[in-house]
Amino acid sequence: MSPDIIEVKYALDTFYFLVSGALVMWMAAGFAMLEAGLVRSKNTTEILTKNVALFAIACTMYLLMGYTIMYGGSAGGLLPDAWFGNSIANATAEEVLASNGDTYYSGASDFFFQVVFVATAMSIVSGAVAERMKLWAFLAFAVVMTGFIYPMQGMWKWGGGFLDAAGFQDFAGSGVVHLCGAAAALSGVLLLGARKGKYGKDGSVKAIPGANMPLAAIGMFILWMGWFGFNGGSELKVSDIGEANAVADVFVNTNAAACGGLLVALIVAHFKFGKADLTMAVNGALAGLVSITAEPLAWDALSATLVGGVGGLIVVFSVLLMDKIRIDDPVGAISVHGVAGIWGLLAVTLSGNDSATLYGQLLGIVTIFAWTFVTSGIVWYLLKMTMGIRVSEQEEYEGVDISECGIDAYPEFVAGK
Amino acid sequence: MSPDIIEVKYALDTFYFLVSGALVMWMAAGFAMLEAGLVRSKNTTEILTKNVALFAIACTMYLLMGYTIMYGGSAGGLLPDAWFGNSIANATAEEVLASNGDTYYSGASDFFFQVVFVATAMSIVSGAVAERMKLWAFLAFAVVMTGFIYPMQGMWKWGGGFLDAAGFQDFAGSGVVHLCGAAAALSGVLLLGARKGKYGKDGSVKAIPGANMPLAAIGMFILWMGWFGFNGGSELKVSDIGEANAVADVFVNTNAAACGGLLVALIVAHFKFGKADLTMAVNGALAGLVSITAEPLAWDALSATLVGGVGGLIVVFSVLLMDKIRIDDPVGAISVHGVAGIWGLLAVTLSGNDSATLYGQLLGIVTIFAWTFVTSGIVWYLLKMTMGIRVSEQEEYEGVDISECGIDAYPEFVAGK
Amino acid sequence: MSPDIIEVKYALDTFYFLVSGALVMWMAAGFAMLEAGLVRSKNTTEILTKNVALFAIACTMYLLMGYTIMYGGSAGGLLPDAWFGNSIANATAEEVLASNGDTYYSGASDFFFQVVFVATAMSIVSGAVAERMKLWAFLAFAVVMTGFIYPMQGMWKWGGGFLDAAGFQDFAGSGVVHLCGAAAALSGVLLLGARKGKYGKDGSVKAIPGANMPLAAIGMFILWMGWFGFNGGSELKVSDIGEANAVADVFVNTNAAACGGLLVALIVAHFKFGKADLTMAVNGALAGLVSITAEPLAWDALSATLVGGVGGLIVVFSVLLMDKIRIDDPVGAISVHGVAGIWGLLAVTLSGNDSATLYGQLLGIVTIFAWTFVTSGIVWYLLKMTMGIRVSEQEEYEGVDISECGIDAYPEFVAGK
Repeated sequence: MSPDIIEVKYALDTFYFLVSGALVMWMAAGFAMLEAGLVRSKNTTEILTKNVALFAIACTMYLLMGYTIMYGGSAGGLLPDAWFGNSIANATAEEVLASNGDTYYSGASDFFFQVVFVATAMSIVSGAVAERMKLWAFLAFAVVMTGFIYPMQGMWKWGGGFLDAAGFQDFAGSGVVHLCGAAAALSGVLLLGARKGKYGKDGSVKAIPGANMPLAAIGMFILWMGWFGFNGGSELKVSDIGEANAVADVFVNTNAAACGGLLVALIVAHFKFGKADLTMAVNGALAGLVSITAEPLAWDALSATLVGGVGGLIVVFSVLLMDKIRIDDPVGAISVHGVAGIWGLLAVTLSGNDSATLYGQLLGIVTIFAWTFVTSGIVWYLLKMTMGIRVSEQEEYEGVDISECGIDAYPEFVAGK
Repeated sequence: MSPDIIEVKYALDTFYFLVSGALVMWMAAGFAMLEAGLVRSKNTTEILTKNVALFAIACTMYLLMGYTIMYGGSAGGLLPDAWFGNSIANATAEEVLASNGDTYYSGASDFFFQVVFVATAMSIVSGAVAERMKLWAFLAFAVVMTGFIYPMQGMWKWGGGFLDAAGFQDFAGSGVVHLCGAAAALSGVLLLGARKGKYGKDGSVKAIPGANMPLAAIGMFILWMGWFGFNGGSELKVSDIGEANAVADVFVNTNAAACGGLLVALIVAHFKFGKADLTMAVNGALAGLVSITAEPLAWDALSATLVGGVGGLIVVFSVLLMDKIRIDDPVGAISVHGVAGIWGLLAVTLSGNDSATLYGQLLGIVTIFAWTFVTSGIVWYLLKMTMGIRVSEQEEYEGVDISECGIDAYPEFVAGK
Repeated sequence: MSPDIIEVKYALDTFYFLVSGALVMWMAAGFAMLEAGLVRSKNTTEILTKNVALFAIACTMYLLMGYTIMYGGSAGGLLPDAWFGNSIANATAEEVLASNGDTYYSGASDFFFQVVFVATAMSIVSGAVAERMKLWAFLAFAVVMTGFIYPMQGMWKWGGGFLDAAGFQDFAGSGVVHLCGAAAALSGVLLLGARKGKYGKDGSVKAIPGANMPLAAIGMFILWMGWFGFNGGSELKVSDIGEANAVADVFVNTNAAACGGLLVALIVAHFKFGKADLTMAVNGALAGLVSITAEPLAWDALSATLVGGVGGLIVVFSVLLMDKIRIDDPVGAISVHGVAGIWGLLAVTLSGNDSATLYGQLLGIVTIFAWTFVTSGIVWYLLKMTMGIRVSEQEEYEGVDISECGIDAYPEFVAGK
């Protein structure tokens, strides 16, 4: 290629990365709105505060060490080559031209794209532990999760570690991001326990409706839109014909899977509950998105719709199952990101992706889950033993907005609790 | 052109298409929020459910058949060359290079851009029939509308059918998308009837205020932003100097028209009602956007402001007129998308677009309206005869959220209904 | 460069400008939601109406005269070369090719990018004067501010006027946009006075909580996302390797500064108030963004985090100080955009930007503040003497939604005021 072509392609790929990253950053707003809509009004300010603060923590910790751990090199191994040291660096024009197109985007744009992913993983956790976890304990967990736990398993796959060497396939992170977030959430929920009154001694399950459905809906739309950056940007390159086609296919399939998940969840919920359950439709769409994330390219659009549809089916039953086994996840995050994430990873073996093996996918699933669940559990446990992770019963009853944040989310509206 | 240039242009045009499509997809959130803000709280979950579900139905039906009907070929005629058969296909690098730039974007990116348009058309309908239509009847209509009714008239213009051959000009869809959506809405509203209590026997009109003005405002902003993709992407190409200039002009004029519509509607409403009516301002902006959509390129920016301003003027009087003739459209969708859409199509003849003729524009308006109104009317009628399209009086009184979705939108807030 | 390369670079830079501009336009929604969340429910419709209307006024006035004043030329001087005359013009393909790359983006895309900046400056004002200013007086002020006051000082820097000649450095507008908006707000607030009941005769300060925290949070996220266009687009070019690297650095640093500001404000507020104060976190993030806006390029990411962190620190104390000196700014706009803006401008001298001098920065700060404060004060004063700028005590008590707009924002929810 001529230097001019290398240059303009570099610019285009960098810009594509930055636009994709901005869309993924936008997902932080989606999680914040989704979770704010699905909790009760007395816990809304606090969940918002968690969501805005975790994003800032994630970006800062990833800058301090996470990015180095994840992408500082590991050569198929278990441990990173380095733990600290800011590795954001742009190649100079001379270096790019000398690489003859091998260096095809700005290092800073890569960091930007990666840093918003870790925030996504962390956002998954906040919903599951909502309405009863201490805010500062959660933020302390976020420090470890985004600086260490997430980057380690991320390195194993995307940083060229042993999972990558073993052939584990995970295009944009059904495992590395979504299952990881869900596993951290699960260990937190288990140590935290259910919200007071959620499960009766007689085995009954009390529905605790979310306070603000429009927020849940816009949260879903934001996540859906952001996912075009999440999956679309994960192709990493758009500047030649084959790559441009691939990115376009990813957009189409990502959208199709969300649609499939939404419709199947809506219809299944209709037959199970006799109602068009908006929260199930929302979670179905998200489950469809999570399902396709491991492989949004190898399918045709109809198959992608089906892959997402299966995700939507799974999420309805998973949400019900969680309540049956008394795992109290107010927003369904473990089902959406964990269970549908596993389905997505397994489904890769059914796609046209020839590199995927059942062994590789299972190894990835087990590794990511075990690593994240155990390390997270240790951190949650240490926090529980030291600062405590659960608010007092009185605080929970009155709502964590007042005890943790001192600010009502809707001071003028609330008629009752 | 050299192969390298063809390649990078193809990548740029594909990326531009995908970004534009993502912005149009985002409009679905805009419609959802706008409508959720303008209905009463007891009908909010249901309108959200309709909006998320219609998007999924639209994308799926368009994939199954709509895209084939619309772009499968018709050679100036009335009928499509094919009805079914997934026609999403990317040209290979070899084919693109062999085309010497005639194939300048990915087929999948084209599908993605088109599929979000059909969802827009369908979103228009949901607002007009809000607060009294059965959810599943609406979704059943959505299946036919997005799989058949919309694609047919779309094929007549954008698929190279008889309207295109007759010189009908409609850049981004004042007719094909907005008038089409409004015509389907109108036939539904006529068969459905007004909300209980809206029109008194003495000729009085009862104002039924929307429950959540911030949602209406963010809905407008989302639609405004998304319109940059809607109109900006409809240039279809950005990769040479002339096209880049054209896309920039489209952005400027689209923004200007929205501003004109907003200001004129705000001022006219001030003189008519003595108040700065936010809902009129919002509908004025949207009417401005609809007005410029038929021709966002040929005007200079001041003229575009005026074109939008006339749209804003029209929408105030149209909204009042609809109430006078007892067409109950809770969000003003028929006025915004239908009446302003007709204005926009006629205004093309005043622009510098030399291809536009009054005959061609009228033919397009009459054809799109008649086709959509009649076929939609038939479908609504069949639904009315079979499953019924209107909820019971008791359900309407209690709100469709409970009867249709089983979920209150704001379970903790509502003081009265 | 070959003509083909010039062409494709022109297209890429134009597209980058348009995407950036769309993100900045989106910031209007961010201000609207932020402000709607932070005022009381009885003043919500009115603040939304102000926000949508000011955007339309800003774009129209800037089209009519502001753009000419600001970019019509001034050759290092005080006065513009021209006051009126639409100067939106695209170079033809021949002209672009003849310029050999000196003309590298569409003139219309430049206008689009600039026009959304003036709306941002104006949006800053609306929050500070919320809950007691007359709507039409505010809109009348917006006409002068966006058509004359903002463009004049903008011309002095970005139009090549005397501030630019004096070496004043302001990459994306900590001064030209944010300090300018804050200075206009301050003079308005001083002439307007505090809200009734805000400050007791005994020196007490009454907290007046905002009605809707999720809106404040989504407002922050929208602004954060939009800032990638605001700062990222201000590099003005992306199409070669060095520029692409620079744009990527800007994205990274902008994000880092927001994170720093958020975390520091959250932690400082925790130590001062004992609570995790969401509104302080939100304002801290925005202060971080304002702080980095004057120079988002010369820092590394850790330094950018610190620059933003200092902004977050400043904003907490500034907000408290404003209340001490009884400057009633319901949303903290003067602190966020003015005080943090000054910090950002001074901080440029600490960055690697060798062109920055303390003299130049101080000259810019004093000039922008003095010009905007004085001219705004004159306009506010004239408005006060003629139409009046403050609603009656009765209207303020009942809320300006009813008196100004005739529409309750949440007609069904409000339990008390």
